[in-house]
Amino acid sequence: MTVLAEPGRTAGYALDAAYYVDPQVHELDLAAIFARHWIFVATEAEVREPGDYVTIELGRYSVIVLRDDDGTVQALHNVCRHRGSRVLAEARGSVGNLVCGYHQWTYATDGSLLHAGQQPAGFDKSCLGLKKVAVRSVAGLVYICLADEPPNDFEEVAGWITPYLVPHALERTKVAAQEDLVEHANWKLVMENNRECYHCEAGHPELTSTFFPTYGYAVEEIPPRLMPAHARYVRAEAELRRTCDERGLPHALVEELHGRPTAVRIAREALDGAGESYTRDGRAASRKLLGDLDTPRLGRLSLHHQPNAWFHFLGDHAVTFSVLPLAADRTLVRTTWLVHEDAVEGVDYDVESLTEVWRATNEQDAELVARAQAGVGSPAYEPGPYAPNEYQVDAFVAWYLERLKEHVTS
Amino acid sequence: MTVLAEPGRTAGYALDAAYYVDPQVHELDLAAIFARHWIFVATEAEVREPGDYVTIELGRYSVIVLRDDDGTVQALHNVCRHRGSRVLAEARGSVGNLVCGYHQWTYATDGSLLHAGQQPAGFDKSCLGLKKVAVRSVAGLVYICLADEPPNDFEEVAGWITPYLVPHALERTKVAAQEDLVEHANWKLVMENNRECYHCEAGHPELTSTFFPTYGYAVEEIPPRLMPAHARYVRAEAELRRTCDERGLPHALVEELHGRPTAVRIAREALDGAGESYTRDGRAASRKLLGDLDTPRLGRLSLHHQPNAWFHFLGDHAVTFSVLPLAADRTLVRTTWLVHEDAVEGVDYDVESLTEVWRATNEQDAELVARAQAGVGSPAYEPGPYAPNEYQVDAFVAWYLERLKEHVTS
Amino acid sequence: MTVLAEPGRTAGYALDAAYYVDPQVHELDLAAIFARHWIFVATEAEVREPGDYVTIELGRYSVIVLRDDDGTVQALHNVCRHRGSRVLAEARGSVGNLVCGYHQWTYATDGSLLHAGQQPAGFDKSCLGLKKVAVRSVAGLVYICLADEPPNDFEEVAGWITPYLVPHALERTKVAAQEDLVEHANWKLVMENNRECYHCEAGHPELTSTFFPTYGYAVEEIPPRLMPAHARYVRAEAELRRTCDERGLPHALVEELHGRPTAVRIAREALDGAGESYTRDGRAASRKLLGDLDTPRLGRLSLHHQPNAWFHFLGDHAVTFSVLPLAADRTLVRTTWLVHEDAVEGVDYDVESLTEVWRATNEQDAELVARAQAGVGSPAYEPGPYAPNEYQVDAFVAWYLERLKEHVTS
Repeated sequence: MTVLAEPGRTAGYALDAAYYVDPQVHELDLAAIFARHWIFVATEAEVREPGDYVTIELGRYSVIVLRDDDGTVQALHNVCRHRGSRVLAEARGSVGNLVCGYHQWTYATDGSLLHAGQQPAGFDKSCLGLKKVAVRSVAGLVYICLADEPPNDFEEVAGWITPYLVPHALERTKVAAQEDLVEHANWKLVMENNRECYHCEAGHPELTSTFFPTYGYAVEEIPPRLMPAHARYVRAEAELRRTCDERGLPHALVEELHGRPTAVRIAREALDGAGESYTRDGRAASRKLLGDLDTPRLGRLSLHHQPNAWFHFLGDHAVTFSVLPLAADRTLVRTTWLVHEDAVEGVDYDVESLTEVWRATNEQDAELVARAQAGVGSPAYEPGPYAPNEYQVDAFVAWYLERLKEHVTS
Repeated sequence: MTVLAEPGRTAGYALDAAYYVDPQVHELDLAAIFARHWIFVATEAEVREPGDYVTIELGRYSVIVLRDDDGTVQALHNVCRHRGSRVLAEARGSVGNLVCGYHQWTYATDGSLLHAGQQPAGFDKSCLGLKKVAVRSVAGLVYICLADEPPNDFEEVAGWITPYLVPHALERTKVAAQEDLVEHANWKLVMENNRECYHCEAGHPELTSTFFPTYGYAVEEIPPRLMPAHARYVRAEAELRRTCDERGLPHALVEELHGRPTAVRIAREALDGAGESYTRDGRAASRKLLGDLDTPRLGRLSLHHQPNAWFHFLGDHAVTFSVLPLAADRTLVRTTWLVHEDAVEGVDYDVESLTEVWRATNEQDAELVARAQAGVGSPAYEPGPYAPNEYQVDAFVAWYLERLKEHVTS
Repeated sequence: MTVLAEPGRTAGYALDAAYYVDPQVHELDLAAIFARHWIFVATEAEVREPGDYVTIELGRYSVIVLRDDDGTVQALHNVCRHRGSRVLAEARGSVGNLVCGYHQWTYATDGSLLHAGQQPAGFDKSCLGLKKVAVRSVAGLVYICLADEPPNDFEEVAGWITPYLVPHALERTKVAAQEDLVEHANWKLVMENNRECYHCEAGHPELTSTFFPTYGYAVEEIPPRLMPAHARYVRAEAELRRTCDERGLPHALVEELHGRPTAVRIAREALDGAGESYTRDGRAASRKLLGDLDTPRLGRLSLHHQPNAWFHFLGDHAVTFSVLPLAADRTLVRTTWLVHEDAVEGVDYDVESLTEVWRATNEQDAELVARAQAGVGSPAYEPGPYAPNEYQVDAFVAWYLERLKEHVTS
């Protein structure tokens, strides 16, 4: 592994193979990236009531995200303080207290130890609560950080994100569907794939019925065959800006993809087709709009958050994606669809119509990144040049190498 | 792996995670524990007739345990002296000679080479017999030791065990049932789980119908909710001692769980419920009692043998457990139920009734130790304190660390 | 791994266990043997028309073997020059151009880059063609070599082989059947197993109906029970030589099994039974003979090619075997049956009759080598002596050690 001795790459070119296939680099990624940065793991809609929890497997860690009895979202290590058993074995559920299934050690929802069977004098419960994990909700999106000292630029970034998200009122949503997909590729290939739409026109027929395939192209680079799509895009963008301005909805691009620990991109962009939502025909999937929005014609508010998440907030629903590494060559992608808490399934929305575009797109992406993973494993692989419409991939890779360097030198 | 540099632990606390999850520690365990100590692998009832054999997979070794033509139990490496093929591919069976399936090299039941096809002058069969493994039967329990110089305290321990076992006459038993269960945990978690009943009350409803859940508790530590069970236990113990004394059956506790290579615990303890056997209601499972016993009300004679076995000898049957490591996080638990050789299935005993308590208990334990294995793998795991009723777990861990230290320094 | 410090072995004895089980030796084998020698991977019959291709997985490499638009067989690394994706994901097929499924980079059948989407000025397509792999067809057998400088004795060996193969006219054959079998053993155990028939009499009932079980025996070593088979063999050999001499077919033995990079054995030998072909009764499986042959009574022309192939050319069909390592303990054996391109299935030949002997033999060998793999993994394994009829195994092992030594010292 010469990764650390030589953390560079040819500017504008893809990473060397070791970054994608070497188990030692994977360990480094877990330590340098996933154990030190803010990681998106859930939405508050998944833990609506006190006692509701989800368990998150992040590298070798298992973390319980739950709403405590005071209504606050907590994150606790899912490791009993007695002999280390997983306290909660299920992926989600609802509890009064947290009772370890092995010897019935019992913890309150804030992690404090309540009962531990028969113990000798001097046994100090106060030292044996479940260990806490840093947790932060941003307008309904739950992030955790495993580090003792989380990156201190997160508040600033949360401040940027919040005004965009508030009108979509995630605190008044519920989970309409959730899908876990294990992709056979390194987590970075999954993220890189998401940062360009060079592959969309050929690879994503369902998505490109509403997603303009010119994503990532500078105007002067748009190939002739995409010019009609571009013309539609220009008209739709103008209309979208008017609609947002009339309602005070922010739409300025935020793009800070490297040069800092907490890197994001926020963009509100028009949708193709009927222009309302991420559905096959572009019409809203839920009749009940989010928050107090009065029109579905709000395009997609897309948030990209390094290292591990992207999101689309529409007028009628939201869809979140979290990327969790399982091994050097396997990655979990969890997709969650949120609708207004009062929307009624079968009346206001239909799960199939709501989810079909991104379920199909996820499957297609899974196949593409698996082919990439298989390919870069060949000793004959040599990093190739990024095209201009892959500039966000280039930025992600630059950020990643910065973060490794920061980890190694600190 | 800092295990060897720092073989200690906080007294009274569980082991560090590396001991349970690190593949290098697993290799060390195979070398220091399983290749150097006496390991329980089978009962003589499994190889009753000359030519009967079982093959045992122990780490990377494969060992044939068989009864030779003279009626002696032999242990032979299951590796052909020609090109190394497994000689016997099945888990059990009966043979005249041992014929390697590859090129038909043929060995007698004592391992000596009889035929090896067409060979040149000077080919010396006498140097090419199957290699022998040290083997020792203790009142029907078959132990092997892979070391050239097995621990020399085994004879002493065998001398302690034998008088307890003789009345149960294992040489006149047969196998009624055998179950192999692969548990997803390190072998030490499997053994530790067996050394305490702190988890029994909540975890083992079938077992606690006859196993007093006060196991391991000092009288002064028994929690109030278990006092009724304790009262029953005290009465049953008094009766058991009378019954044994009248028949000359030993019942004194032997507890040498650390400080020596061959560590054991022997205890005869009363059973709850009907008090006769390890069944759901406590009644005998076989009408034909073992040996010449005249009553089933003999409690359970429980033998624990480090590193890898525990046993319960009842009036009507015996049940043996051998623990064989497969990987750092996978362990084979083989359970064997023995009844009198003249007991007739469907008449004297029913396999389902005989086996249901321990089959259920094994499944429950498998789930508990898998949760423990998953939990200790988290970097957030920190060894916790053992309760007083876990003193045998503590003793097992102490023995284990002594044995590692002995291995490393010798 | 002391393999390199001590590359020897006791002359006439099998290899040490590390050579079969150690993942590091497996990496060495991939580098020293499979990445440096000529490897048989396919027949021209698998890529008959321009655009026809097969993809070959060889260690971590993926190689496309295809017939280009000029009718030449090409071998190209299956790695897109953009971001490393597999260009072709299927095991076989037919294409016009080679279009990477990820971002539609498009290559001609000679590997040159034709299209790569929208790219900036200065983008130089001529530097971004698919990388080439050395490829060589010998009378219809396709070999590749991953090294920049392939062994230079291949032409000489090809010159020896060609006159034997030409009469069988592989360029006018088609694939009648192909079978992939994953054997659970190191590739060397698979090759060693093929180099002796010591195991045939007991292990291969279907094969020995036409394969004389005296293969590998010197006349003076043939055991008495095989003397009747030997007598039939002597008569059949005399007839075969006459038949070949009348037709000008070469039949002299070529045996250069060590002492050079490209090691082969070529032998034409009589068949037992009806004596025509490798079928259950020895009669021809295809009524349409290969090339312009006028009799099926031509025995078997057997070619062994180190490191990874063997072949049998009969009057009526040919069968090829390629051995591709998957892991230290797993190996792919691909068997391909070829018949005359004009032979009609169901009329001239029946796939079941054509393939049954070698399908059964492959399955039997897979079981034998899996037993050998399991056995040599025991620390109790000690290499044993080869019998005289295993001299070709001994030669293979000698060649292998020579090649490792050459790799390490160069």
